[in-house]
Amino acid sequence: MSTSRKNQIFIGTFIHSTTLTTLEYLHNTAIAVSASTGKIIAIEPECDLHKAKTILVPKLGWDSGPTSVEILSTQKDYQFFFPGFIDTHLHASQYPNVGIFGNSTLLDWLNTYTFPLEASLSDISKAKRVYSRVIKKTLSHGTTTAAYYATIDVTATNLLAELCLERGQRALIGRVCMDQLGPEYYLDESPEESLSKTKECVDFIREKKQDLVRPVITPRFAPACSFDLLKKLGDLAKETDLPIQTHISENKNEILLVKELFPMEKTGAKDDSYASVYDAAGLLTEKMILAHGVHLTEFEADLIAERKSKVSHCPCSNSAITSGAAKVRWLLGKGIVVGLGTDMSGGYSPSVLEAARHAVLVSRHVAMGGDDEVAKLSVEEVLYLGTKGGAGVVGLEGTVGGFEVGMEWDAQLIGLGRVEDGGEEEEGEDGGNVDVFGWESWQEKIAKWVYNGDDRNTKKVWVRGRLVHERK
Amino acid sequence: MSTSRKNQIFIGTFIHSTTLTTLEYLHNTAIAVSASTGKIIAIEPECDLHKAKTILVPKLGWDSGPTSVEILSTQKDYQFFFPGFIDTHLHASQYPNVGIFGNSTLLDWLNTYTFPLEASLSDISKAKRVYSRVIKKTLSHGTTTAAYYATIDVTATNLLAELCLERGQRALIGRVCMDQLGPEYYLDESPEESLSKTKECVDFIREKKQDLVRPVITPRFAPACSFDLLKKLGDLAKETDLPIQTHISENKNEILLVKELFPMEKTGAKDDSYASVYDAAGLLTEKMILAHGVHLTEFEADLIAERKSKVSHCPCSNSAITSGAAKVRWLLGKGIVVGLGTDMSGGYSPSVLEAARHAVLVSRHVAMGGDDEVAKLSVEEVLYLGTKGGAGVVGLEGTVGGFEVGMEWDAQLIGLGRVEDGGEEEEGEDGGNVDVFGWESWQEKIAKWVYNGDDRNTKKVWVRGRLVHERK
Repeated sequence: MSTSRKNQIFIGTFIHSTTLTTLEYLHNTAIAVSASTGKIIAIEPECDLHKAKTILVPKLGWDSGPTSVEILSTQKDYQFFFPGFIDTHLHASQYPNVGIFGNSTLLDWLNTYTFPLEASLSDISKAKRVYSRVIKKTLSHGTTTAAYYATIDVTATNLLAELCLERGQRALIGRVCMDQLGPEYYLDESPEESLSKTKECVDFIREKKQDLVRPVITPRFAPACSFDLLKKLGDLAKETDLPIQTHISENKNEILLVKELFPMEKTGAKDDSYASVYDAAGLLTEKMILAHGVHLTEFEADLIAERKSKVSHCPCSNSAITSGAAKVRWLLGKGIVVGLGTDMSGGYSPSVLEAARHAVLVSRHVAMGGDDEVAKLSVEEVLYLGTKGGAGVVGLEGTVGGFEVGMEWDAQLIGLGRVEDGGEEEEGEDGGNVDVFGWESWQEKIAKWVYNGDDRNTKKVWVRGRLVHERK
Repeated sequence: MSTSRKNQIFIGTFIHSTTLTTLEYLHNTAIAVSASTGKIIAIEPECDLHKAKTILVPKLGWDSGPTSVEILSTQKDYQFFFPGFIDTHLHASQYPNVGIFGNSTLLDWLNTYTFPLEASLSDISKAKRVYSRVIKKTLSHGTTTAAYYATIDVTATNLLAELCLERGQRALIGRVCMDQLGPEYYLDESPEESLSKTKECVDFIREKKQDLVRPVITPRFAPACSFDLLKKLGDLAKETDLPIQTHISENKNEILLVKELFPMEKTGAKDDSYASVYDAAGLLTEKMILAHGVHLTEFEADLIAERKSKVSHCPCSNSAITSGAAKVRWLLGKGIVVGLGTDMSGGYSPSVLEAARHAVLVSRHVAMGGDDEVAKLSVEEVLYLGTKGGAGVVGLEGTVGGFEVGMEWDAQLIGLGRVEDGGEEEEGEDGGNVDVFGWESWQEKIAKWVYNGDDRNTKKVWVRGRLVHERK
């Protein structure tokens, strides 16, 4: 990683969410990014390349020489800058299994496909191959921040953290804690071992003295943890103020299992709900990222809202392994902060854009199930979930997810395709499956991107000002 | 189009559906395709390049010189030949609107987005740009046969037929018939005009003296046609034995509209169901392609089965414009032949592979809605729907959709991505988002393709032996 980066100015159209329902379109705008901090230090409207050089650079007190400032200007009406995506839930270790689940559902899927693969990543060369690929792949889809689950293996988990740092992806890295439910060959031996191995990973990352990659306390999900382990992790969260991530209420059989494994007399909770188990263990805090929440009860959603825990909505996964359709509008209505997760490999796609698309589609299935038009999410709303919503989920609200002075430059340059008169695509451009004919409004171009876009449209990706992916 | 094509031999792995639930994997196999007919004339097991040259070519009585036979051999374990996809329902004219529908549903979507665009294609230069693009795009996704709706315009519809012939895509071309419901600027003036314009298009295509591109009688859908028009088209179908295509039971309000517009005393039907309206007009024949069928009643499904009409399942569209979730397992159980349709631009994607993926996902929503695991479609089943099922829908059963001696060579060469040890992709390959690590079974590779594949995996496409697309 080069540390001698230049100051940068980006010129063109910038699009980002200002509210859940509103995208702001900033045309002919320049954004200046500091080399030393990677932060946005100026947003200049009505600016072009000439003005940037002659007015903006001097105003910023920057040397205008070519060694000091790098300027990227695009005035093409089918290119724009967009905040980097935030993937609030994915299992780096499961990446080789994307698309492989047959007709299974959660609990048999874990045993058949997931545990064997995760266990095999204690082979560090295999872990390196898989983790290198998943970082490269998610970056190429514009994922600038990822909340990763690794495996129970300390060395491989630490390797994932190192690789993220090396490649420049902002990440939360979680060593998976599980002392029950898993097969004998893939379990922590005791709550104590689970805790001490977690601390090893936390210490390893903290010793790096940086905050791009952070540790996250990661009980796999309640059924895979003894209550003793859950409580120990709750205590650790309290001591360290670290973020926490886990799963909740993904699948109906899983919920029954939780009721069976965690009776009220064991947890001391006032009811036997799934959320109350985490709450009783001290894990339901404002730093908790709860994946799925498909079948949450009214009581649980209210409790989660009260505790200010966050929810990662994983629509591709929930459909693919037949978990259910999460009621996102209902969660949002309770004031819960919601982001998107690819949940590879329950989800099959590395793309947050695909998760956004499926958040729209799944919300329509929720609407069709209840004849409730209000459930439907718009293109604008799911893009919010994939950026600002996600930032809130992973504790980076105000730091990433939008274009404002003081926020860090985690961004992607998006290029769509331009159809020429003969029906061919403009020479030298690869717009993938997003065909712009030229008469579309910006809102329509964004809709086309959400529905047919893929990594071919993600031309460049930056994290904290550093160029971390460029499409050749 | 070159008419001096060579005889061809393809060597490698061939994968195709033998039954709804079974894919056959033919490894180390050679398939010989005749230059004069485009048909498969031999399938040779245990064959490699050497054996093809020294044994197969002489056995076929072919001259082995380089000017006579072209051989394409691939022994890579992440490449295979697959039958071309059959898109049983799409609107070529709506292609520029893919992804643009906001939160609308069928009837307002037609008025807001669809009719204005379709009407504008009476501008032939615009029609040429749009139709050229949609043919190129669908071919690049492996669609070797497409059942197209054009517009009400005769000249533009004929242009679509000409372009398909020129590019070599097998197609059904339908001039849209509609003498009510549409806006004033986009309607046939009378049933008589609708009929005579349809005949103009039929005659235009028939004069070409070929059978790659065929005309299809196309009443838009019942609400857009007077009963007089429907009957006239029913008579035309009987006279000409041509295929017919239309929509049925896509959306609940549409169904109510049909009941209102077509009372039993008008149609003479014995009940007021949507299917009975088509039946009373003589349109519900074994040559009828019915798109959607989301909300069909038991009675209607039985009637459709009895009449041997076919159904085009369009899952992307049905989710995107909130129509509903079609119960495909239930239709198949009644013996109805079902294929897949992209239904652009109600559907947003040009890809039958994406339709297949969504057929899986939507079937899971059907299962989750009724707690009925049986509803779930497998990867194998949706690939059948996209190939052999589709062939049955468009009247090409036994001609395309599989690899058998006597069938025509409508095929695609699929290439997946191979992840190297360092996590990079093999040099010079672009596997898109399908990452093969090397330990996957063929069944798992197919699953990976269905879930993450796109046009980058479709390396070459042939129709009747002619190479119609090649990925650069």
